Amino acid sequence: MSIYDEALKFHEEKRGKLEVVPRVEVKDARDLSLAYTPGVAQPCLEIQKDPNKAYIYTRKWNTVAVASDGTAVLGLGDIGPLGSLPVMEGKSVLFKTFGDVDAIPILLDTKDTDEIVETLIRIAPSFGGINLEDISAPRCFEIEKKLKEKLDIPIFHDDQHGTAIVTLSALLNALKIVNKKLEDLKVIVNGAGAAGVAITRLLLSSGVKNVILCDRTGAIFEGRENLNSSKSEIAKITNPNKEQGSLKEVLKNSDVFVGVSAPNTLNEEMVKSMNSDAIIFAMANPIPEIFPEDAKKAGARVIGTGRSDFPNQINNVLAFPGIFRGALDVRAKDINEEMKLAAAYAIANSVNESELNEENIMPKSFDTTVQAKVAEAVREAARKSGVARI
Amino acid sequence: MSIYDEALKFHEEKRGKLEVVPRVEVKDARDLSLAYTPGVAQPCLEIQKDPNKAYIYTRKWNTVAVASDGTAVLGLGDIGPLGSLPVMEGKSVLFKTFGDVDAIPILLDTKDTDEIVETLIRIAPSFGGINLEDISAPRCFEIEKKLKEKLDIPIFHDDQHGTAIVTLSALLNALKIVNKKLEDLKVIVNGAGAAGVAITRLLLSSGVKNVILCDRTGAIFEGRENLNSSKSEIAKITNPNKEQGSLKEVLKNSDVFVGVSAPNTLNEEMVKSMNSDAIIFAMANPIPEIFPEDAKKAGARVIGTGRSDFPNQINNVLAFPGIFRGALDVRAKDINEEMKLAAAYAIANSVNESELNEENIMPKSFDTTVQAKVAEAVREAARKSGVARI
Repeated sequence: MSIYDEALKFHEEKRGKLEVVPRVEVKDARDLSLAYTPGVAQPCLEIQKDPNKAYIYTRKWNTVAVASDGTAVLGLGDIGPLGSLPVMEGKSVLFKTFGDVDAIPILLDTKDTDEIVETLIRIAPSFGGINLEDISAPRCFEIEKKLKEKLDIPIFHDDQHGTAIVTLSALLNALKIVNKKLEDLKVIVNGAGAAGVAITRLLLSSGVKNVILCDRTGAIFEGRENLNSSKSEIAKITNPNKEQGSLKEVLKNSDVFVGVSAPNTLNEEMVKSMNSDAIIFAMANPIPEIFPEDAKKAGARVIGTGRSDFPNQINNVLAFPGIFRGALDVRAKDINEEMKLAAAYAIANSVNESELNEENIMPKSFDTTVQAKVAEAVREAARKSGVARI
Repeated sequence: MSIYDEALKFHEEKRGKLEVVPRVEVKDARDLSLAYTPGVAQPCLEIQKDPNKAYIYTRKWNTVAVASDGTAVLGLGDIGPLGSLPVMEGKSVLFKTFGDVDAIPILLDTKDTDEIVETLIRIAPSFGGINLEDISAPRCFEIEKKLKEKLDIPIFHDDQHGTAIVTLSALLNALKIVNKKLEDLKVIVNGAGAAGVAITRLLLSSGVKNVILCDRTGAIFEGRENLNSSKSEIAKITNPNKEQGSLKEVLKNSDVFVGVSAPNTLNEEMVKSMNSDAIIFAMANPIPEIFPEDAKKAGARVIGTGRSDFPNQINNVLAFPGIFRGALDVRAKDINEEMKLAAAYAIANSVNESELNEENIMPKSFDTTVQAKVAEAVREAARKSGVARI
């Protein structure tokens, strides 16, 4: 039986991967008078007087919406909101399992960016944060930006920032092996969707000077024709030497390839054209841009993928549960650049230097101590950068 | 320590009365591949092909939104959405405890009826039903009506219909004691808000011919000035003798008083003006329209209130968990009049005739066998009336 058939059977048996359970017992009139009428009136009035009290008397402090319109689901594309529900339930399971966060799938039956923003603002009161999920680019950028402007709870598009954070973690550890520095690198990011754009931005924040983002047309540079708004913004802040040409052309003499694109977009010849000690993160799923074996043969030194059956899995689950745990713990108003960088370093530093090698740059996805370290780093960064409320 | 102080302490200790928990374990790569990537793609694709499959592969089948704008919370009035969260969490606890329904508070940060309707439609996909809660009249009528027209999942405003159902249950059993029939009664309903209007309508559905709804001005009759749209609709179908005057005036020679109004609106003199074997349901909370002792003194035969410390508590918790349990079980498209009547009879019939007396017309609120009977009756009524999908 294939994993797909097995998963179908599994889902049919479970009939839902999530459940909402009481944290209080109601077995007699006294229980009811405390948890519901008449006693419940008191916390209600306290919250009416001071909205911050909602973080004390309700579950708002620990509750996150996992919101999706189903337009960019896994490798499946636009399958609609309802079709995405098994993914959103799964994501919510990971939130609770790895971050002790209460996550609730919110499916948005509209693709209009303004309507999505408006809807999430209207239902925001009960949530301590919003995790945007599987919303297609470039709509996801605008949605996230507007929500961040209008709401004072953390907004985080995991397909962008979760991926960017774990990619940076992988790079930080790979650099320890090849003995290169962020500021000296030439990095090619292939795939200008949500993940590619966010990876590019976080690499810039981390100190990389020369990043070139490529789309299907090739390198993005200032002045290129037909750039959408997110690509033209990126053009202004990347590719300082204004390199033009195909992926193959700009990849020459680069140090790092980051693929969030499509299967088999990289071949051995292209890897050979890179600088020595090349780093390859081929994260297309399930078929990577190049298989690790082939990249190795072509001389790459450190290779990571999105898959668990190869070494160096670069997996978001290492980031988002701990990031929200940390942000919720300090009632952060935002998840900012400082918090993302802190998370990336915390993940990288979870691998002991003594255990670090070409085939072991990332902590294991099921090592639950990592998320605790990420949460701690995120709390500290939130406090230092002034977005923590407690 | 008062119940209010105790409840505040209780809420502070709990920090939320609800929690979202996984129904699946994720402890290794294999678990992840079944519950999340890559296996989860299969149920997603199946749902994309046939949206009904969402009832099989996700928790939609058992999940209900408890939606409120916080405009009519308990006795507190308009305290805003966030202030209402302790109530919505409490309601969700009751849903799970008594109906095994997964209920999720959805707070609406708008009072505009069209925006509320639009917002709930946009987030409807993950829900198997929507329970509207504590939304002020007459807005609640329009919101419910529009949602029922536009969505094919059960929509139920508990402040209206839950209250109406348990009131009818109480009346059915009280009539067994006084030996009167629905069609012979003159019933006065005092309070023309959400509950009063719904009680009036359900009494008509149940066979009562002469119901008079009163607001602060007195009896509502066809042609009275300054009636809002819900009251003028009610005027057309009630008060067949077009009685005019104050509550005190129309109450004369009536058989039943139903109060969903304000403390102390009824006095002994008024009760004395009613027919013999008068039935009084004084449900204002926590101070009823008249205290049972005083009503008894004035000659009333059967008296019920909303309180657990008097006999005959008329409590919604007997209705809504079983109603949604039944509706969800058969994937009902609606909760219609037939299902409400069936629920009312099921609750009434839960009291053995041998145990039925003036002080025992209602089942106990914590008797969990009642909800099972309600669910069964609702499933059957849904099937017979053609709104069940399975």
